[in-house]
This record gives sequence, structure tokens and C-alpha cells, in this order.
Amino acid sequence: MFDELFGKLDDTAWLQAMLDAEKALVSALAQAGHIPVETAEEIKRHCTIDGIDPAELGRRAIAAGNPVVPLVKLLRERVPEHARYVHFGATSQDIMDTAAALVASRALVPMTADVDAAMHKCLLLAGDHRDTVMIGRTLGQQASPVTFGLKCAGWATALYRAVHNVRRVRLDAQLGGAVGTLAMIGDTKVSEWFAVKVGLTEPVIPWHTDRTRLAELAAALGVLAGVLGKIALDVTLLAQTEIDEVREATGGGSSTLPHKQNPTRSVLITAAVRQVPGLVATMLAAMPQENERATGAWHAEWETLTSLLRLVGGAAARTRDLLDGLQVDKERMRVNLELTNGLVMAEAVVARTGQPEVVAEIVRRAAESGQSFRACLIADRRINLSEEDIDRALDPAEYVGVANEFVERVLRYRYE
Amino acid sequence: MFDELFGKLDDTAWLQAMLDAEKALVSALAQAGHIPVETAEEIKRHCTIDGIDPAELGRRAIAAGNPVVPLVKLLRERVPEHARYVHFGATSQDIMDTAAALVASRALVPMTADVDAAMHKCLLLAGDHRDTVMIGRTLGQQASPVTFGLKCAGWATALYRAVHNVRRVRLDAQLGGAVGTLAMIGDTKVSEWFAVKVGLTEPVIPWHTDRTRLAELAAALGVLAGVLGKIALDVTLLAQTEIDEVREATGGGSSTLPHKQNPTRSVLITAAVRQVPGLVATMLAAMPQENERATGAWHAEWETLTSLLRLVGGAAARTRDLLDGLQVDKERMRVNLELTNGLVMAEAVVARTGQPEVVAEIVRRAAESGQSFRACLIADRRINLSEEDIDRALDPAEYVGVANEFVERVLRYRYE
Amino acid sequence: MFDELFGKLDDTAWLQAMLDAEKALVSALAQAGHIPVETAEEIKRHCTIDGIDPAELGRRAIAAGNPVVPLVKLLRERVPEHARYVHFGATSQDIMDTAAALVASRALVPMTADVDAAMHKCLLLAGDHRDTVMIGRTLGQQASPVTFGLKCAGWATALYRAVHNVRRVRLDAQLGGAVGTLAMIGDTKVSEWFAVKVGLTEPVIPWHTDRTRLAELAAALGVLAGVLGKIALDVTLLAQTEIDEVREATGGGSSTLPHKQNPTRSVLITAAVRQVPGLVATMLAAMPQENERATGAWHAEWETLTSLLRLVGGAAARTRDLLDGLQVDKERMRVNLELTNGLVMAEAVVARTGQPEVVAEIVRRAAESGQSFRACLIADRRINLSEEDIDRALDPAEYVGVANEFVERVLRYRYE
Amino acid sequence: MFDELFGKLDDTAWLQAMLDAEKALVSALAQAGHIPVETAEEIKRHCTIDGIDPAELGRRAIAAGNPVVPLVKLLRERVPEHARYVHFGATSQDIMDTAAALVASRALVPMTADVDAAMHKCLLLAGDHRDTVMIGRTLGQQASPVTFGLKCAGWATALYRAVHNVRRVRLDAQLGGAVGTLAMIGDTKVSEWFAVKVGLTEPVIPWHTDRTRLAELAAALGVLAGVLGKIALDVTLLAQTEIDEVREATGGGSSTLPHKQNPTRSVLITAAVRQVPGLVATMLAAMPQENERATGAWHAEWETLTSLLRLVGGAAARTRDLLDGLQVDKERMRVNLELTNGLVMAEAVVARTGQPEVVAEIVRRAAESGQSFRACLIADRRINLSEEDIDRALDPAEYVGVANEFVERVLRYRYE
Repeated sequence: MFDELFGKLDDTAWLQAMLDAEKALVSALAQAGHIPVETAEEIKRHCTIDGIDPAELGRRAIAAGNPVVPLVKLLRERVPEHARYVHFGATSQDIMDTAAALVASRALVPMTADVDAAMHKCLLLAGDHRDTVMIGRTLGQQASPVTFGLKCAGWATALYRAVHNVRRVRLDAQLGGAVGTLAMIGDTKVSEWFAVKVGLTEPVIPWHTDRTRLAELAAALGVLAGVLGKIALDVTLLAQTEIDEVREATGGGSSTLPHKQNPTRSVLITAAVRQVPGLVATMLAAMPQENERATGAWHAEWETLTSLLRLVGGAAARTRDLLDGLQVDKERMRVNLELTNGLVMAEAVVARTGQPEVVAEIVRRAAESGQSFRACLIADRRINLSEEDIDRALDPAEYVGVANEFVERVLRYRYE
Repeated sequence: MFDELFGKLDDTAWLQAMLDAEKALVSALAQAGHIPVETAEEIKRHCTIDGIDPAELGRRAIAAGNPVVPLVKLLRERVPEHARYVHFGATSQDIMDTAAALVASRALVPMTADVDAAMHKCLLLAGDHRDTVMIGRTLGQQASPVTFGLKCAGWATALYRAVHNVRRVRLDAQLGGAVGTLAMIGDTKVSEWFAVKVGLTEPVIPWHTDRTRLAELAAALGVLAGVLGKIALDVTLLAQTEIDEVREATGGGSSTLPHKQNPTRSVLITAAVRQVPGLVATMLAAMPQENERATGAWHAEWETLTSLLRLVGGAAARTRDLLDGLQVDKERMRVNLELTNGLVMAEAVVARTGQPEVVAEIVRRAAESGQSFRACLIADRRINLSEEDIDRALDPAEYVGVANEFVERVLRYRYE
Repeated sequence: MFDELFGKLDDTAWLQAMLDAEKALVSALAQAGHIPVETAEEIKRHCTIDGIDPAELGRRAIAAGNPVVPLVKLLRERVPEHARYVHFGATSQDIMDTAAALVASRALVPMTADVDAAMHKCLLLAGDHRDTVMIGRTLGQQASPVTFGLKCAGWATALYRAVHNVRRVRLDAQLGGAVGTLAMIGDTKVSEWFAVKVGLTEPVIPWHTDRTRLAELAAALGVLAGVLGKIALDVTLLAQTEIDEVREATGGGSSTLPHKQNPTRSVLITAAVRQVPGLVATMLAAMPQENERATGAWHAEWETLTSLLRLVGGAAARTRDLLDGLQVDKERMRVNLELTNGLVMAEAVVARTGQPEVVAEIVRRAAESGQSFRACLIADRRINLSEEDIDRALDPAEYVGVANEFVERVLRYRYE
Repeated sequence: MFDELFGKLDDTAWLQAMLDAEKALVSALAQAGHIPVETAEEIKRHCTIDGIDPAELGRRAIAAGNPVVPLVKLLRERVPEHARYVHFGATSQDIMDTAAALVASRALVPMTADVDAAMHKCLLLAGDHRDTVMIGRTLGQQASPVTFGLKCAGWATALYRAVHNVRRVRLDAQLGGAVGTLAMIGDTKVSEWFAVKVGLTEPVIPWHTDRTRLAELAAALGVLAGVLGKIALDVTLLAQTEIDEVREATGGGSSTLPHKQNPTRSVLITAAVRQVPGLVATMLAAMPQENERATGAWHAEWETLTSLLRLVGGAAARTRDLLDGLQVDKERMRVNLELTNGLVMAEAVVARTGQPEVVAEIVRRAAESGQSFRACLIADRRINLSEEDIDRALDPAEYVGVANEFVERVLRYRYE
């Protein structure tokens, strides 16, 4: 139920990856001349997921502490004549770690594609809205004008940086045998071929207790989640009834309130993103692993990594969807700019007059009296501006600084 | 696969709890006279789990942001003539929060029973081994003698305190309607009856954005997990080949090494426990929830709470099993006491002689020369003890302080 | 700089507590007849903080791994003739753990007083504003009316529950000697007196590797922080320029924008609260501690616990201050209730008409046409209400359900 | 006290960085022609740390919510005639973010140097001990032989990968003004020069609410901490009394036990490392920041980032020291290889015989009878090896697989 809602990645993905690792192992052994090619082919033919119940495998895994042991037993029973070559020279962790790398690299394909698409949508919005002036908000307060284009440009650059980081993580295959010496196999050709066959890179040496790879991946997913969360947060804030500057394509109907349109996508993205930092902490805390292979810490990674990939993948897909359908209400942005009766333009007036103390005093007077800032400015003799200049100073579109130049920078940036 | 390995708690438990909440609602409405009893009975007859696919419900939940909306729709379709009374006056979060409380309180039953059983096993071991002297280890080094009974007494008191904390958390029902005013129903009799019918306590007021209850539960589970992890850690350390003072009932066979017996239960407990602190942090970080009902934070609790209950429940069951079959090797404990050739008794000699500097010097000499501590003590004229007294000072059983008194205290402590 | 900003608790508090523990130890030894009373008095006279530089103590602590070793050395040099009785029979962790309990229990005094005061202020506000109708907001959207009194009642109950939890944690003294057997002292009278003298309770047995006490405290602080964060979040949301229903006593001036009044107290509370869940996770993850005394995990608690007490204490004080000066704008609340032109009263109309589909249709029509909900309701023949009844249905004050009864419940609740 | 023990990074570093940012700002304004060079020089002359008390600044920061506001006030009072140019066009967050980047990049210099040195020491050890055979341990059990060189090569590659990651993080300067538009200044030349003057890179656009940079840094520090923790964990495990294969240069004396030598460096590294994952989670959870500048989340980063830099920096220095003085006991490694009477060589015998079932049976028999594995192998007719071959199969040095080749790979790897 919940995995459909937040992001899906199930036992089958793991099981398939474990089988792929076992297949790659016999292929590599054959390629390096350690076992006959026909034997390898015969074993591979039986490394199919059909007839394997993940739940049952999980139950049988309890005695050994990991699901590779019962899986290997099951495969050996399928090819009794070649039983000794199944899993030859590998340790359970070789298969689990390689499967983890496979599961991750496969899950990253749609995830990064979704982030790319979301980023490109942000770039489109940045271009389309470079002149859409809106109020900028800091610490929850209306501050000074910005453009919606600049906001979208900011989302785009953060997405770019985050997805680039995720892609940069190299997820190596793992084959080291019981203690990382490949003692049973005694031939690094096999580990080279193993990586090739399984479609991953070969590490310099086995990484049974060097968890940098998985920790880097978790961390990169954590950063990406934070960026997705920032976009969803902005949307929920801008979609508040009292602000109402953006809306989701079709809002979530309430179970009791007919008038409500909830920002459901943003809510679900937020919900997924909030679960991520704790999971990253678990992955980092699991890094110090004992001696040649650890006593529980690598077992703690399986579900944690799965949840990370699942939640961030789901949030990425939903962010893409959110941005694709985002409705921007320029008119409401214009209206909101005027809510303070001009006071948000105080800094602009300071910039033109160079009279910060005088302006601050007029701001106070306007706020207390309820009069418009414009009227108070005109009435104050000390202000060294003509009425025309005052109007220009009070025009939000005139006070977005280099927002356009920043948007251009982002649009011109080379996104590979 | 992994949930079979670490602990199981699935969508069905949530779905059943959600249905139970909807049933309790119509019962309460009938009891308080708002709807006919027959209508309530008719609706309740259709609140069955049969024919509801959690995955499909999850998919339909995406549009609304939570699974209650499609569930209510489905139930209303089952009883079209009473549709308007299904879920009457409730908000989705009423159902999800009540279901969370139900799922938790149901999961706590076997979990706390397992902890109780584990604790009683520790008390038995404490009694049986009050005279089993072994070396105490601090910062990884052999320090001074303790008894295995004292160690087990320590496990017992920690388990007691932790499970007591878990039991103390009051998980109230939730019924407040859209904004916590019960506006649609307008009758606190309904919320009183709702709590009775669903088998939970009634809160003083609705707790839609007061998450103390769930946060306390998460925190209590976090503390319990830490205690389970402590026991598993001690077992893995004492089961190291070089120490070998305890063993699990039947160790986990290695996939490659015929001679190995891995402490599999402890490993799986450790793996589960290591995932807990990050999940607790997620629950705590989700506490600040916006206004009357939150924008994503309560949605983040569903999977997190489920994982917490699942992992701690699994670890509790496995700890019980671990302790039930734990093999204690008194002989090996005796042997290990002698590994330092008497040096671990240095403090005992200081205690009897009151000559800390002299003893420290003899310790150094013994360590450097390889001679036994006993021989060095006898040879050193400055030591004011007879050979007999030296032997008594070097007897580990004579230097376990008030270990027995502490064990007695623990055994006499009233465990309700 | 930052500790002044967020909350202060420094090395001096720890150093004083460590000295208090050493003093209590010699007092207890004297009381139980193990050392002369005069000796104890003489040692205690030298257990003063004067002349001890915490930084220098920290540097000297590196070699031994904890600051007790150099502190004891320093104290022994002060009373050379009684050197052997200083720290007699204790291990470094006895002193550090007892000091941790002391530092915590001392920091809890002002913290819980501040929370009590904040809670009482919430109760006052709840009473004063039981008839202050405002819009309730869910998922960021205007939903249905509530009262500001109900909101404050919710804050109060959460604060009450959280502070009650913090107070419930029993922080015992620690005295077990090297391995928890009190071997050097051999007399539980000393540990009993030690607890009395240091002003803490005595544990059943030493808790060197049973960290439930500190973990429970950390968890309780985590829950309290979440409650404080909820209040600050509500204030920042309600203080948004576009909503503006509450304001802090005197807002934070901006460094550049003369018109802005930032909700500075809420911002600083939020900043402190956000640091807490990670720290709690650290305390929980440090619970599994090896054998008789751990290899790094208890050392990880010192700074973490200090930060927790510091941040939550600071946030509690600031919340008290925030609530004391909170300005509530009833008029703006009234205005905001009308922002949707009556649509927020849709549920109320459904409640009176029992015509959910018809009302939903009218809501859509009103939203699309821009006409008032009232006009559309009157114009729609299917609505079975008189104009008078429609007006009553549209009156927010008529649709706050049992809000008042809930506020009464909270006010009547017995707060010890 | 504790910062001396675990790692030091104090308020002064922040204050200096904030002053450097203010200085760079006026320099950039002058360079771009917005203010006279002399004015800039005059202001810079007064941007000194002398006479500024960080604690006092912290107290004054409470009203405004950050320490930049009182700092700017203080600087303006120092140069009243140029007051308006101090901090011109910047927002408080510009200064705090730039200061954060400066504090971090300065703290990374010694930290990365220490990691480099530690890595090179590991490479030296890897080369020196490529033939030092020792038992490999998995899940706490003796498994199969490895070399100490391979273990050190593993440490080196993990350190290399982790420090490379830390160095890769680009920490940009921050200058955007109130809402990231540079509205007051209106000239990107100033932001370009600002970055140059402050010695950081210029971002594509301001990053007030794009926290990827700091989050990446935190994550990279988290991964590095995990690697340091792995090394310390291995040392504490190998230094256990019962294993005793490595020792720290000079162990920590116990406060009560004269014979103990605690692995103090490893303990302190472990203590620091254990605090890191929670802090990283805080940084990640703070990423979703509201609109143009956030309401508390960026304030939560200051202390968290400081702690991360402090703890990881301290742990890196200590790891370097630990490795520099590490004593390796080859003789004890040899002795420990024989503890199981040959059983750890079972896989080697399987590798030579291809008779897994027979060997497993003999292992069981040897374990039960207490006879040596060698004797049982010779006695068993089914084993197809000569006595000579059995002896070779039982020689650990003959069964380290490709350990040497792996060490060579690591030594040949190009470390820039």
C-alpha cells in the first residue's frame, strides 16, 4: 500500500540482481578457463527467478543470516551435477554487495531521468517567467521583489548539481571470497570478467569492509532528496490559500471539505524526503565494519538502501509530474506585491535616495497610520526624489536587480 | 524477503486497523444516537478486508495523498444506501492516526511478551551463574573479574526498564474531524464511544498536530532496541573465536567455510537495531506539524513507524530465542582468566597491600620479563603479604566485590 | 557566540559536577567508615574549581582518553598525604556518568520551569481566546473554522505531556568501580551514601553499559523539542505577511529591509529544535556498549548530551519569552476567514443540508464564477435552507463544533 | 574541555571569517567602482577581531536572530563617516554563508593533510606487511588467512576515496542581497570580485536556499568519518587482550588498573566518529529551505557544520597519530593462526581436494574430538592428498590467494 504511494522497489529486484550476480560468476569462471563453458551455460539456464518465492527465501535465510545461502542451496538442487560450481569461490557478501550495486544502478536510471526532466522543466519555466515579477519572501515575510524565473532557475541549478553527484558515484562489483583474497579462485581474471559480465566496474581491491561506495550513494541521494524537498516546500508555501500564487495541476480532493484542493504531490514528496536523512545516517553509521567482514553492519544496509532508492525515486518521479503540471498565477503574484501598500519597496527607495534612516522613519509612519507608503514618501519633504522618481522606485519590476542576468547564466550553463 | 528475515508487519495490518477504525466510528455514532443501529451494523458488515488489494488501494491513494480516501470510496460503493454515514464526520487523518495507534498496540503485544521472556531468561541465567567467575573487559581489555551472573543481571535490568517504558506509552484514539473541532458531529459522546469501540483510550483533545504520543512510542522503541543491541553485541564479542565463552544454540553455517559457526541471531539483531536510531530521528523531526493538520510530516510517519515496530519486534523475538539457546562455557571463562598470567589481578593485590606504586612496578616487570605475576610478587620483598595471602589475592573468585549482592538485588526486584 | 544565541551549558558545569562526584565519594567512604571523616573533609576542601583550567584539563585528557584521569592527578597533588583516598575505588566512568546525571538534573531545573511557564501562558491564552474564531488550516489550505483558544489548548497539552516525560526520567548516580563489582570498596553502603551525598538516586546495580537512563533522557528531550518546534512553526506560519494573525512582541529588524519584522524568537527556536533529532539518534546509537565498559560509545555521549540540554534549554526559555509577548490580531483573523468568500463554510452547509453532492457543485460554481458562496447557495433551488439558515450556516462562529468543550477539558485538567 | 579532547574549532574562526567576508565586500565594491578605494581601505582597517568579544556578540545577536547584525552595527560605529558602505548591499546570510564556506575550507587544509599522511602510512604498512600472514576474521570468527598488508591496503584505498570526495566539494562565496537579486548593488562584477577577494569560487547564482554545497560537504565528511571509524574499530578489535596483534604507541593508563593499556586513540576516534551521522542527518534535513531565505533551517547549520569539521578534523589528526605509532605483533599473528588447531585451513583443503562434504565431516570430527585437523586429515582415507600436500594445504602463507596482487594494485594506484 505505502510503497505504491511513495515509491516501489521490491524483493524481486533484489532476487533478480542476486541471480544475475551468480550468473556473472559462472560466466567469468568459464571465460577465465576455470570451468567449462557448457557448465556455465547450464547453470545460468537455471538461474531464473521462476519458482522462487522471496518470502520463503527470507524465512530460510534466518538460519544462515542472509538470503544467499538458501538461494545457492536451491540453485545447486536445480543442477545437482554442477552443484560445486554454483557460487564457486564467492562468499555470500560478494553476491549481496554486487546485487546492491546492481539494484542501485538499475533504480538510478529512471530516477536520474526523472530529475533531468524536472530540471529541464525548471529551465523552461525560468525562461518563460524571467519577467514574472513576484514578491520574494525571507523568514516568512515579504521582503523585496524577485522573478518567478529566478526561483525556477534556482531549482534547476540545485537539481543539476544534485543529480550530477548521484551519477558520479561509481558502484563497483564485489568479488573477494571469504576474506577478500580470492583464495579459492586465485585468479584476478575472474574478478575482472565478473565485473564485465555483471555490467559494473571492477574495484581496485574487494570492498567488503570499505563501504565508501554505498555511503557515497546514500549521501548523494540524501542531497538530491533535500533539493526535491525544497521545491515541494516552495510549492506548498506558494499554494497556501492566502498566497495562492501557484497550484498543482489537479489538487487532492479532501475527504470532508468540498472546497479544498490540497497540494498532494508536494505533500507526498515532502513525506518521502523527510524519511531520507535518518536513512542516510544509518548508512553512515554502518560504515565502521569489523575486520574482513562485519557482524551485522552490512546486513543493516539492505533495507536501508532499498528504502532510500525507493523513496528518492518516488519523489523524483512525483517532482517531475508536479513541475509538468504546475500552474503559475501571475495575476495573483501582482496582487500580492501590493499587499503591504508599497512597504516592500522600502529598500528600493533607500537605494535611490541613500537615506536609510529617513526611509525607515517613513516606513514606520506609513505602517502605523495605514496610509500608503507612496503618499507618505511624497508628503515627506526630506525625500530627495520627484514624484516620478518615487513611482519608479516603487515599481517592483524596476527593482529585481540582476535577476535576469542570473537567469541567463543558468540558461546558458552547459548541462551535459 | 528482508521482512521475513528481520521482522514482519505488513499492509494488511494497516488495512485491518483502518477498517476497524471505520467500524468503530459508525458504532460510536449509533451508540450516541446519531445513526440507526441497523445502519451501523450494515456498514460494519461490509468493512471487511476481503476483496481489497492493498497495492491497488495504494495506487488509488496517490491522487488524494492518503489511502483513506479510496478506502472510504470503496466502502461507500459497498453500501450505497448508507454511503453518507460511512466515515461520517471524520477526516482521513482520524482514521490513519487511530489505525497507527491500533497497529502499534497490536504489534506491542508479542514484542513485549518476547522481551518479558528474554528478561526472565536473563534472571534465570543470573541466578544460575552467580558463581561463574569470568574476566570483565573494559575498553576491549581484560580488566578485573566479574561473574557471568552479574552480566546477565545487567541485561535483565536494562530489558526491564526498556520494556516498562514501552508499555507506559498511552496510545489514544483520534477523532477530531477536519480541524479537530468535531464540527460535523458536534458531540463528544461520539469521540468517547469511538475510543471504547476501537479499544484505545480517549485523548483530552484531538492530537492531529500534537505528535507526542507517536514520538514517545518511537523513542521508547529506540531505547529498547539499544538494550537488545547491547545483548547481541556482548554475545558477538564473547563468541569470538579467540574468546569463545558463549555460543549460540546452533550457529550459522558459512557459505564457504565448513569450520565456521557464525553468531547469526546476534548478527540479525544487530542489523535490525542499527536501523532504529535513524528512524526515531525521523519521527522526532516530523513532530513540528503545521497548524491544524500538516503538509507531509504525518505522512512521513506511516512507513517509519511500521519499520520501527517491525524491526524492534523482530529483534525482540530473536533475542528471546538467542537467550533461550545460549551456551555458556564456564571452562573457557576460567581459561581466559589466566591468559595474562595473573596480571588482571593487579588491582586485587593493590586492594590488599595498599601499595599501588610497588604493584604497578611489579606488573611492568612481569609483563616485560614474561614471568608470572605470582612469581614476581613473591620475589619482591616490598610486598607485605604472605605467599598464602598472595594466592588469595590472585584468586579471581575472591575479587568479584559485591557482584553477588548486586545479583541478589536484581533477583529480588519486583517485576510486575 | 553561538551558544549565547541558542543556549549555554559549558565546561564549567561539567567540571563542577565531576568535583561534586569526587567529593561525594570521599564523603560516602567516610560515612561508611572506610576513611576518617577528617581525611574526607580535607580532600573535599581541595575539590574546588579554582585554579583548574578546563581547556588544559582537556589537553591532558588526551593521553588517558577522559578528563577524570588528569583531574584525579591534579587533586592528588593538592592533598599528597591523602592521595590514595582521592577517587578511591572508583573508575573514571563512575565520575563521568555521575557528572552527566548531575549536569543534566541541574540543567533540567530552569528548563522545566520555562516549559511550565510557557504551558501556563498557553492555558491563559486558551481561556482568553476561547471565542476568538479563526480559520483552521490543513495541508496549507484554509479548511474550517477553529478558535485560537483551541490552538493554544493544543500547545498546552503537548507541552504538559512532554515536560512530564522529561521529569519522569530517573537519573541515578553511578559507582561500580572498574568492572561494576565495587571490588576495591566491597561495601554497598558506600554506593548508597554516594547517591545520597551527590543528591541523586541509587541504581539497583551499576549501569556502566546499561545506557537506558541517558537514552530515555535524550528521547524525552527530543519529544519536548518537537513540541517547542510545533509552536514556533505555527507562529512563523501565522506571522507570514499574507496571514499576519500573530506577531512576536518585537520583531527582529532586518539588516537591509526597514519594513521587515522577522519572527526572530521562532526562528531561533526552530534552529535549535532542528538540531535535536540527530543528537537523539547519536545517543540511541551509542547504547550498545561493549562488555563491562565500552570502547568509545560512552565517550560519544558527553558532547551530545551537553548539546541536547543546551539547545532544548535555550529553546524552552525562548518559547516562554515568545508566548509571553505574543500579539494576537483578532481582527485579522476575522478578515482572513472571509478570504474565500464563504467557501470555507462549505462543510458547515453540508452538515446542515445533508446534500454533499449539491454543495460540492455549488462550491465549484462559486469558485469558477467568482460569485460569493452565499449568493450561489441562495440562487440554487435544490438547497433546502432558508436565507436565514444559510446565513447561520455561513457564520464561522456557529461552526467550531465542540472547540469550547475541548478548551474546557484542557483548562480543567489537573496539572501537578 | 571536550573540544580539546575531540577537536577544536571555535567562535574565533567564525568571527574572523565574517570579518573577512565584510572586508572582501568593500574591496569588491571598490574594485568595481562603486565606492572609493580609500573608503574600502579605511573600512578594512577597522575590520579587525581585536576588541570584539564573541560571547557579547552572541548575546546581541539574539534580537536580530544572527550575529551579523550586531557585528555590522559595531563596525559602523568604528567608521561612522563610512557607515553606509559597511555591509553595503549584502544580507546577513551572505556574510554567514560566505563565512561558513571560509571556515570549512580553512578547516579542511589540516584535515585533508592529516588524512593524506594517514593514507601514506597505510601504504607503507601495506608494503612492509605484504607477507605478514594473519587470520582473517568474518562475523567475529576466525575465517581464512589474509595478510596485514592487505588490511592496510584496504584502509588506504578507503581513505583515498573519502578524502578525494571531501576535496571535490566546491564551496562558493555567497553574495545575493536580501532576496538573491543583488538589487541594491545591481552589478555582477561585484559578486565576481567578492569571490576573488574572499578566496572562494563564484557560484552561477546565489545559493541562499540551495544548500547542496554545505550538504555535500557534510556528506563527504560523514563518509570520511566512517572510514576513520573503520580503522579505529579494527585497531580496538585487534588490540583486545585475547587477540593482541596490534597495539597503540603508548596505551592509555587506567585510572585504577595498573596492568591495562587502553587503545585510547582508537577510543577517541570512535567517540568522535559516532557523533557524525546524526550531524549529517541534521544538515540534510535542513536542506528544504523556504522561498528566498529560510525560517530557521540555515540557522541550524552553523553549529552543526562547526561540530562536523571539529570532530572529523580531530579524528583525522588522531588517526594519523594512531597509524604513525601502531605496533604490529607478527609473532602473535602467527600464534593466533594456530588457535583452531588447523581448522581455519578447511577451505584451503577443500580448494585442493574438491571434497567439500568429506572435509566438512573431518572438520566436525576434529572439532568434537579435540584432535588436530592435520591428524584427522591424514587418518581419513578418503582424502586424496599426500601428507606433504596436506601440510602445504594447511600452511596459511600458501592460502592468501591474490592478496599480494591486490596490495600491488593499491601501491601502484596513482594517488594525486
